[in-house]
Amino acid sequence: MRLGDQEIGGGKLAVMAGPCAVESYEQLLESARAVKAAGAHFLRGGAFKPRTSPYSFQGLEEEGLKMLRAVREETGLLIVTEAIDPHSAALVAEYADIIQIGARNMQNFFLLREVAKLKKPVLLKRGMSATIEEWLMAAEYILAGGNYDVILCERGIRTYETYTRNTLDISAVPLIKQLSHLPVVVDPSHGTGKCALVAPMAKAAIAAGADGLMIEVHPKPSEALSDGPQSLTPQNFQALMDELRVLAGFVGKSL
Amino acid sequence: MRLGDQEIGGGKLAVMAGPCAVESYEQLLESARAVKAAGAHFLRGGAFKPRTSPYSFQGLEEEGLKMLRAVREETGLLIVTEAIDPHSAALVAEYADIIQIGARNMQNFFLLREVAKLKKPVLLKRGMSATIEEWLMAAEYILAGGNYDVILCERGIRTYETYTRNTLDISAVPLIKQLSHLPVVVDPSHGTGKCALVAPMAKAAIAAGADGLMIEVHPKPSEALSDGPQSLTPQNFQALMDELRVLAGFVGKSL
Amino acid sequence: MRLGDQEIGGGKLAVMAGPCAVESYEQLLESARAVKAAGAHFLRGGAFKPRTSPYSFQGLEEEGLKMLRAVREETGLLIVTEAIDPHSAALVAEYADIIQIGARNMQNFFLLREVAKLKKPVLLKRGMSATIEEWLMAAEYILAGGNYDVILCERGIRTYETYTRNTLDISAVPLIKQLSHLPVVVDPSHGTGKCALVAPMAKAAIAAGADGLMIEVHPKPSEALSDGPQSLTPQNFQALMDELRVLAGFVGKSL
Amino acid sequence: MRLGDQEIGGGKLAVMAGPCAVESYEQLLESARAVKAAGAHFLRGGAFKPRTSPYSFQGLEEEGLKMLRAVREETGLLIVTEAIDPHSAALVAEYADIIQIGARNMQNFFLLREVAKLKKPVLLKRGMSATIEEWLMAAEYILAGGNYDVILCERGIRTYETYTRNTLDISAVPLIKQLSHLPVVVDPSHGTGKCALVAPMAKAAIAAGADGLMIEVHPKPSEALSDGPQSLTPQNFQALMDELRVLAGFVGKSL
Repeated sequence: MRLGDQEIGGGKLAVMAGPCAVESYEQLLESARAVKAAGAHFLRGGAFKPRTSPYSFQGLEEEGLKMLRAVREETGLLIVTEAIDPHSAALVAEYADIIQIGARNMQNFFLLREVAKLKKPVLLKRGMSATIEEWLMAAEYILAGGNYDVILCERGIRTYETYTRNTLDISAVPLIKQLSHLPVVVDPSHGTGKCALVAPMAKAAIAAGADGLMIEVHPKPSEALSDGPQSLTPQNFQALMDELRVLAGFVGKSL
Repeated sequence: MRLGDQEIGGGKLAVMAGPCAVESYEQLLESARAVKAAGAHFLRGGAFKPRTSPYSFQGLEEEGLKMLRAVREETGLLIVTEAIDPHSAALVAEYADIIQIGARNMQNFFLLREVAKLKKPVLLKRGMSATIEEWLMAAEYILAGGNYDVILCERGIRTYETYTRNTLDISAVPLIKQLSHLPVVVDPSHGTGKCALVAPMAKAAIAAGADGLMIEVHPKPSEALSDGPQSLTPQNFQALMDELRVLAGFVGKSL
Repeated sequence: MRLGDQEIGGGKLAVMAGPCAVESYEQLLESARAVKAAGAHFLRGGAFKPRTSPYSFQGLEEEGLKMLRAVREETGLLIVTEAIDPHSAALVAEYADIIQIGARNMQNFFLLREVAKLKKPVLLKRGMSATIEEWLMAAEYILAGGNYDVILCERGIRTYETYTRNTLDISAVPLIKQLSHLPVVVDPSHGTGKCALVAPMAKAAIAAGADGLMIEVHPKPSEALSDGPQSLTPQNFQALMDELRVLAGFVGKSL
Repeated sequence: MRLGDQEIGGGKLAVMAGPCAVESYEQLLESARAVKAAGAHFLRGGAFKPRTSPYSFQGLEEEGLKMLRAVREETGLLIVTEAIDPHSAALVAEYADIIQIGARNMQNFFLLREVAKLKKPVLLKRGMSATIEEWLMAAEYILAGGNYDVILCERGIRTYETYTRNTLDISAVPLIKQLSHLPVVVDPSHGTGKCALVAPMAKAAIAAGADGLMIEVHPKPSEALSDGPQSLTPQNFQALMDELRVLAGFVGKSL
């Protein structure tokens, strides 16, 4: 799958990095410059945030999308950001390069059918307790709607273990490779919920055959409006990218 | 909460029964007459079916809603049926008495906000792996939108056990009673996936304090288009209702 | 199954109650008198405690068994207490009426074979993440060893939900009734971990067809050496037993 | 930790490979020669098999241990094999180099205390639904008994996913590294239950920092008495070892 001068699912690993939420233009630009300097290809950052509580911060919405587009022009990074309903999907398709469907919406079949019509690549996160089969069937809703550019994203499943936020199911990567032609990336930030586990799990994902990574990076994790404890600092992200560049060679890919 | 001459959450148990899906006018009317004769107050039956695969039967849609309304007029039973997106929600609000939000859509916050505006009672099923807190927060999206008539429905959670379709979490009933003022009903059909377990689990739910039940009944379970193995025959449903009438007295309620 | 003048699995519900651990003769006798006054038939109380940490209180061991026997003579209650290894199993068989095998040891096949030889009734708790099939197969180790007096005890399974200590799987009761001739009792104390949920779940278990209950009762729950938060006071236990006496009639049994 | 001329937990990856069960001297020797030729350091193979059903094949017992010792002398491979009770533990300590404690016995505290006394290295598998904390506490039973040579082995946890036998929790590797000084190896054979997933998950484990691997290899997987579907052929194992030798360099280790 080609996007501008980037590709996903071929010989080059795709790295999507950036803050959990778009908080301000300055925060976003600083994050973008840091992840670009380290070698990321895509900027992630949520403008529409699906939150467990209706009283939590819900994102900057279209204002956030405008910041993403401005930073895209400033840095050249492609944009991946989440859509949570038909209205936001249309907006995201206008401003961004990849429409993300989050774990909670994996079986929101209406939304899947809507994004199928938008003819933009879709990154489909695995539901919190979705089986591999349900996940592939959810992708099928998008494919059956005529949109063939679907990227799957493993982001951890819900188990009894409480030490990690989720249990990152790395085995999903080779399973998807056996069952489907779709590219699959891994999100070790949500998958573990702990910044100290992001680097080892990112490496594990690549060693298992993942086509890329989605990683939360924040200039000041302790001040993040959401997901601070699982965000890497720019320095840690740079160090991880240096390791991944070597590892990419091991799996016959480049970064 | 009062609906016509019925109430939910007071001294009278609410029983919602009927087929998984509306398949035809004849099937629906036969089901409705059977469940009414046994003492049910609400007819359930899906016109919009959220299915794992895009290639499975998706329901009769508005045609199904028309059948539900016709059977409502024929029998006097109130109607509870599922909405899966804004379009179906508006239609369901027009034709039915209670809008059901299914497990897959429990955190479809956009849909929750839409049904909040429709000013019809909403039955909110627990997500497949939702915590009690996430479930109550999902209800909060509807309450915060100005619709206070929310009924919670426990329908089983996903665990490692494969003998049952889900693990029906009866402890959710007394927990909800402690944490919230909302009425809570239990669906032992989806909760177990096995017709032989429906009656004992229905009784367990009432003994634990549930305000009602949602039960799948089909005139010919072996010919059902979906969920046949967990559907009761009219005869089995009648026998269960007879037992529940006695049990209701034990918990100080009536049926 | 008959034990002295008690029976398990017939028309009479068996109630086993008492403290989590035997702490002192006074604590045990006070507990025993309270549960006997309320109508319990068996006194439970651990002398050998399997603990997650090697540094936690491990029980009074044989000293505790002697207290159980003394209280048995004082009150006439039969004794059920846990064995954790061959040594404790032989001692428990000498002092008590029922040998309990805990959840952690459900697949300790060596211990199962040992208790099979001891010719005393065995109460076999379900493992924390055991399937119904694994549980029945564990019982088969005891039956195949020539000991046919096995009582199964559902005590909650491990799920993602953190609000309760475990998820009490009430559906195991009717499932066991379909698949096996063995009696099955339910432990709502470990199954929920919260004293406020014990009474509703005890009633749910009986309504679903359980042959009895195992309930933690402590004279002063706040001072208990273990499991205080899930223990009933004697007053709460008395109130529950009064309700159960009525409910027993509903299911065609007596208490 | 040093064992003969091998080490575990240092700069050299430890690979333990061989059949699930010792079936015959010929099968064992053929397996041993194959895994040795590919570069494995330890031969695994069960002589005492804990089985869900009492009617399944239970292993060759001491006869199997004798075969393991004979093959040890023939090939120079060190032996790791499971003990399931005090009797087998004493025998295993006599014949083998590492005593394995299986997942079902992780909280068999009596057995843990017994192997603590035997002064042989112990490989402690994670229980099927054990938390990281429970696992470390189980190790503490052995350490507190004066045996400091404990190797942890992640072998997959029980989740709702049925496509794989278990969900291999690779994040346990970096977590253990943060919380403990103990070496940790990974068993991708039991962790996935599918031979096609063994190689990618073995690589993921090493990339995440594991100190070694335990892998099932059988000369003819389709004829294996147990676990055939998850066993590698000698050819597949050889190919995996060739890849791991390169990957070891990436993580600064050797094979």
